[in-house]
Amino acid sequence: MMPAQRLPGCRSLHVNEDNGRFVLLAILILVYLLCGAAIFSAIERPSELRARGRWNRTLHNFSEAFNVSLQELSSFLREYETAVAAGIRADSLRPRWDFTGAFYFVGTVVSTIGFGMTTPVTVAGKVFLIFYGLLGCAATILFFNLFLERIITLLAVVMKAFRLRRLRTSGLLPPGICQDFAASSLPGWKPSVYHVMLILGLSAIVISCCASAMYTPVEGWAYLDSLYFCFVTFSTIGFGDLVSSQSEAYDYQGLYRLANFLFILTGVCCIYSLFNVISIVIKQVLNWMLGKMSCLCCQRCNKANAFLGRRNAIRPGSRLRQGRFGRPPDAEGSDTEGRRLSGEMISMRDLTGSNKISLAIMQKQLSESANGYPRTVCGSSRHNGFSGGVGALGIMNNRLAETSDSR
Amino acid sequence: MMPAQRLPGCRSLHVNEDNGRFVLLAILILVYLLCGAAIFSAIERPSELRARGRWNRTLHNFSEAFNVSLQELSSFLREYETAVAAGIRADSLRPRWDFTGAFYFVGTVVSTIGFGMTTPVTVAGKVFLIFYGLLGCAATILFFNLFLERIITLLAVVMKAFRLRRLRTSGLLPPGICQDFAASSLPGWKPSVYHVMLILGLSAIVISCCASAMYTPVEGWAYLDSLYFCFVTFSTIGFGDLVSSQSEAYDYQGLYRLANFLFILTGVCCIYSLFNVISIVIKQVLNWMLGKMSCLCCQRCNKANAFLGRRNAIRPGSRLRQGRFGRPPDAEGSDTEGRRLSGEMISMRDLTGSNKISLAIMQKQLSESANGYPRTVCGSSRHNGFSGGVGALGIMNNRLAETSDSR
Repeated sequence: MMPAQRLPGCRSLHVNEDNGRFVLLAILILVYLLCGAAIFSAIERPSELRARGRWNRTLHNFSEAFNVSLQELSSFLREYETAVAAGIRADSLRPRWDFTGAFYFVGTVVSTIGFGMTTPVTVAGKVFLIFYGLLGCAATILFFNLFLERIITLLAVVMKAFRLRRLRTSGLLPPGICQDFAASSLPGWKPSVYHVMLILGLSAIVISCCASAMYTPVEGWAYLDSLYFCFVTFSTIGFGDLVSSQSEAYDYQGLYRLANFLFILTGVCCIYSLFNVISIVIKQVLNWMLGKMSCLCCQRCNKANAFLGRRNAIRPGSRLRQGRFGRPPDAEGSDTEGRRLSGEMISMRDLTGSNKISLAIMQKQLSESANGYPRTVCGSSRHNGFSGGVGALGIMNNRLAETSDSR
Repeated sequence: MMPAQRLPGCRSLHVNEDNGRFVLLAILILVYLLCGAAIFSAIERPSELRARGRWNRTLHNFSEAFNVSLQELSSFLREYETAVAAGIRADSLRPRWDFTGAFYFVGTVVSTIGFGMTTPVTVAGKVFLIFYGLLGCAATILFFNLFLERIITLLAVVMKAFRLRRLRTSGLLPPGICQDFAASSLPGWKPSVYHVMLILGLSAIVISCCASAMYTPVEGWAYLDSLYFCFVTFSTIGFGDLVSSQSEAYDYQGLYRLANFLFILTGVCCIYSLFNVISIVIKQVLNWMLGKMSCLCCQRCNKANAFLGRRNAIRPGSRLRQGRFGRPPDAEGSDTEGRRLSGEMISMRDLTGSNKISLAIMQKQLSESANGYPRTVCGSSRHNGFSGGVGALGIMNNRLAETSDSR
């Protein structure tokens, strides 16, 4: 949080690691976009040209068969496009703006899916949409985040129960110990980010497959098209090229609409959580890349920094060691974690240990636990108290094993 | 994190506040959706019926004028719809899948805008999209989150600088004090969530107005339509009824495409951040509502609980007081915050204070600062260490004044 201190040499490279991570990610995304554009262009371009040729033939055939000039045809088609924007198709569809249609519409607004099969055309509707969406989208983001929190909590409970039972059956827990204390200080109860990713990924696949199995017969899509629809919808991209529940009538219409709603709701929650968990892994990769870069630099300017770093005052040796190995020594790590996990009491081992060491080190450890993470830096940028993670990461930062260890 | 302990009486009402908040939010969103559906239906339904009538007249006129049967016309229109799905319109548009078109497409995928003006039609394209989107959307969510973090950091720096200068000019800072220490322990450097919301809201309005001023003449839309397009795009809803940069040629085409890209990028980042900040305020409202509900209950079952609460052991008096006033007493609050803010050292006042009080209270305070927030509960559900907030809230939880005070 200090203004960046420009010092000579390569120190300025790692003055602000957070900025570095941001820029690195922006560059990687740009490269990813360019690669994606090239690949999609290669895959889809021939099909676009074929479709264009086919349409031109159809247009000319129709024009000749019914003796309609191309100008008249195209003005007719322009009127049709206006009608399409109002929700009209050649085959009759469900009404757009009856109550259930409007409910589907607002659902796609607040979830930011935005299929676009229904859009407001009046001025009043457009203005209302802006204010309605502003509050609705914010509330839905909160809903997704609370869902994510509930999921992680549930997984943590289940995993802790498993681990406790394994410990108890293997006889590692002394029989006289307070059950509650053992539960709260057990160091392994944070679920791994990879486990959560695996479970969410499997759930997403199961939900998509079940939903596709429903859409394929009811909508008459190919199974792959249904899967594609599920991904596009659940990820809230929502192209609108395929939209479920649009025909005028279905068998068991009420049941189908309810199932459609529930599938989309669970799917969106699941994929949103999955994206956030994947983004933690991406952040770890970014940290690893930055660590590689800055530690290369560290080795070169280590001696120059030894007297510059104000914060090295207490125990420079241990900090340098941490920097080299990328994480604190085991004993210290579990110490801090135990204190953070117990929620109410620090362990007696911890307290008696603290009483033996000097005031200065205790003061340092206090500030570490107050910040919620041990200092594992080799540069100078992580002191600012702002490195507690971000976005949906922020919470999970203290909740998943990897994210609290690797920072 | 403990499995919910079912106790007799109304205690079970606030056994798990997190679940309560989740359910309450779900109910509120459902009500919001129903109201929205009713309002949109009322606004848009007449216009839909008019559009349908207009189109039917056009269809019959065309059919009679050129002696085309309605069946033939509608099969022609069905073929046109297939062509529309491949990106063809009556007026010629830019090619869909050349490199720049594909770049625009992947941009709408990873940002989850998903206009749908371009969609993959080949099987290979659809399969690739699923895997491409999975990684791309996760990376973009991380990008948005890091952007949000950078914005809050920037605001904190600016606000702290302002406050420091005001303190220095008013002579409240002793001249001999270490500048760096003063900066790091200043209690007011966390920006308020309302300030951040105000600044983000103003930025969003400025960006939208500037972007609309560009779109209106270039695309030939009404100014209000441009604003509507900006909101729909920046919020990543992306209906696709209006899409920028789709004509075959513009004056200054390269410049326009670049400006379009930059406007969408900044707008999406800004509105995403705004949504997250608004969702914090919504969460505060939910907490307030839950607090009202559970404290009504508290008063009735207070005496019954007095001997049930295991965690009341250390200082039940102060905890009850906190519960009634909704926040800790001032001295203790600034104490904990000062320790959390300093990042490296706790203030000497703090340390000497700690040495005077009993070991038990110190142990309690240690665990509080380890959790990063003081316990301000009147129920029993906030001990679990899982109440550090969620989603993009999680980070901001420790970074914005309201979120760290009110929990």
